[in-house]
Amino acid sequence: MNSCETTPLSDPFVSQKTHAPYAPGALDGLTFALKDNIDVAREVTGYGSPGWKDAHAAEPVAHAICMEQLLGAGATFKGKTISDELAYSLLGVNAFYGTPANPKAPDRIPGGSSSGSASAVAGKQVDFALGTDTGGSVRVPAANCGIWGYRPSHGAISVSGVLPLAPSYDTVGIMARTGEVLEKVMGVLLAEEGQGPTAPPTVCFVDDVFQLAGGQMAEALAPFQRKIAEMCRTQTATLSEITASHVNWRWLFENLGYLLSIEIWNSFGAWVTHDKPRLSPGAAAGLHGYAEASDRKDIQCRLTFRKTFQRQLNDFLSGGNILCFPTTVDPAPRLDEITPAFYEGDYVPRSMGVNAISSLSRAPQITMPVADIQGVPVGLSFMAGYGQDTTLMGICNLLYSRCGGH
Amino acid sequence: MNSCETTPLSDPFVSQKTHAPYAPGALDGLTFALKDNIDVAREVTGYGSPGWKDAHAAEPVAHAICMEQLLGAGATFKGKTISDELAYSLLGVNAFYGTPANPKAPDRIPGGSSSGSASAVAGKQVDFALGTDTGGSVRVPAANCGIWGYRPSHGAISVSGVLPLAPSYDTVGIMARTGEVLEKVMGVLLAEEGQGPTAPPTVCFVDDVFQLAGGQMAEALAPFQRKIAEMCRTQTATLSEITASHVNWRWLFENLGYLLSIEIWNSFGAWVTHDKPRLSPGAAAGLHGYAEASDRKDIQCRLTFRKTFQRQLNDFLSGGNILCFPTTVDPAPRLDEITPAFYEGDYVPRSMGVNAISSLSRAPQITMPVADIQGVPVGLSFMAGYGQDTTLMGICNLLYSRCGGH
Repeated sequence: MNSCETTPLSDPFVSQKTHAPYAPGALDGLTFALKDNIDVAREVTGYGSPGWKDAHAAEPVAHAICMEQLLGAGATFKGKTISDELAYSLLGVNAFYGTPANPKAPDRIPGGSSSGSASAVAGKQVDFALGTDTGGSVRVPAANCGIWGYRPSHGAISVSGVLPLAPSYDTVGIMARTGEVLEKVMGVLLAEEGQGPTAPPTVCFVDDVFQLAGGQMAEALAPFQRKIAEMCRTQTATLSEITASHVNWRWLFENLGYLLSIEIWNSFGAWVTHDKPRLSPGAAAGLHGYAEASDRKDIQCRLTFRKTFQRQLNDFLSGGNILCFPTTVDPAPRLDEITPAFYEGDYVPRSMGVNAISSLSRAPQITMPVADIQGVPVGLSFMAGYGQDTTLMGICNLLYSRCGGH
Repeated sequence: MNSCETTPLSDPFVSQKTHAPYAPGALDGLTFALKDNIDVAREVTGYGSPGWKDAHAAEPVAHAICMEQLLGAGATFKGKTISDELAYSLLGVNAFYGTPANPKAPDRIPGGSSSGSASAVAGKQVDFALGTDTGGSVRVPAANCGIWGYRPSHGAISVSGVLPLAPSYDTVGIMARTGEVLEKVMGVLLAEEGQGPTAPPTVCFVDDVFQLAGGQMAEALAPFQRKIAEMCRTQTATLSEITASHVNWRWLFENLGYLLSIEIWNSFGAWVTHDKPRLSPGAAAGLHGYAEASDRKDIQCRLTFRKTFQRQLNDFLSGGNILCFPTTVDPAPRLDEITPAFYEGDYVPRSMGVNAISSLSRAPQITMPVADIQGVPVGLSFMAGYGQDTTLMGICNLLYSRCGGH
């Protein structure tokens, strides 16, 4: 990888073949785009990778289930958007297709891997877009581009017709400029719904994530936090206190990183090994690194940690608690910061560590655009118990309207 | 399809390259097999289909996650077992690889699609085996072959390294001869765990499923039911009463059949259309039928029905209720019954309709071998709320030991 990969700033679309809605419905008048790892009939699904596209050149004969649901509900399809190469990065930088613009902060990366979807929504080219979120790939670009982003409860939106990355963590997520549009689209796509909380929620500020973000970020988010505290019951606790264990962001990053890497190697290993496809140096190094660096015999130990974390966190959330924390602990880096040295730094571990809270626990998360740091958008996230997606959406819309969102 | 597809009665293995355990653990001394849609490193995953195998000849470079978990826990791998072609049938009949023997009822089909796994366990060639269950493919062969079978809560066992069929419904399930072995393997594989019920369970006999089974089946299961009633609180209710809606087995079959067919077409459509692979006449007709017969614009309507059913059923189960019903409503058909006319009959719709209760609701189900009809094994199933797999297992082992299982 080198910094030239971040230029030129690209149009967020890889193709713009449109599809009209099948019938009127809840999404009448709304337009949308899909990340290029979601099948659209008669268009090769490119996965942000020319190597993948060459090796998987058979056009899908059918739309992904989520695409059918949206067309059936009255929405108009406007095209497919750039994905990070093989959907595995949080930066939004693609060596082959370019880096989609961050419309609200043009000198910053958009974030990825649903970079084109975030860019198209923030730039008002569509009303909403779908991305995929395995380790933060909807939440991070939504926060960076100043829009709403939603990662559903794992399994609650069909991934049929969506290319797999790490199936135990893969989800289809939604991005929109307003909570109202997000809520409508969620209502169409959710195929699963659990029980809402039985008591009014308490918003729990996750203290160590706010501490990790520190200075400017904490200052930018503080006014919104104060308004939340005025209108509902709040508490402040660390991840360790919430889960009654010794968990922290670095532990979350290391475990999610390991668990993703072994599942990604199951998804791509045979293809990479036998086909030797064209990959960017960064992707090639990353993929081969999975094979060499990870001792797969650690799986059981890591999964046991995960199971414990998931149970402890869901115990806390099932009582009606909502977590609140910064979506990313750093504002989007500048484009000119993305040099080889950047990949050695702490940005990705810090981002992934925070995003791992819901990736590991399977619980839903919504990021809202509530603030900026000198014009650079930052997001505030809310998380509810597994299956409480609709309840969480209602709470987010209420908080946003009452607390005067950005 | 024709009846010659059921002969010859085959060995249940497609390959017998063994793997030693990595380390001692909870599964010390136990041997296992995997269905041939689960990756084993350096063996092409055949999916019960020569056409698939030809088109996907790159050997996996890594074991599926579930295989790693088992080797890491002390179990010894004995080989890969026959799957129905592309894992989509409940019969256990494979035109290319033969029909694995049903060791307990040699003139009967083993059931599928995890036919070889069930056969190998029932025939004591291994202590347990993994299969996959999308619409009943672990539960039906387990019941037919007189062993225990478990379909987990959807998403609770990793499907990474397992070929996808219909991702919203796909699970990796376990078969064993005893509940004790099943419980040990479940403890190793479960990567997710929800909350158990807060009150002692009530066993609810699903009246319309018992009625559908009728005569001989009801008579065979009645003694075990009576013993359950002696030791815990029971009730009897129809699916309509349980869900406060107008649901019945035919509705469940039609909805699951539709929803599976559209996801299966997403999984196989491009390959079948572009590669024109070698398929049995039955599989070819089935797959092309999906493309032609299903109006994909019905998706939203069907998913809305499903969401309602899932919520209503989980509301009932979350209070600590356990459902109990026959795993299949017919004993395993005789091998000589599997003629072209058989495929036009009611056997598959009836089986799928009953298996759809947990496939559609994502809740866990365990079938126990508690009875036979003139020597032909039949299974009794128990179902708990989503995520209550461990609790359900404990209840099943308790009921089986107290009620004197077969």
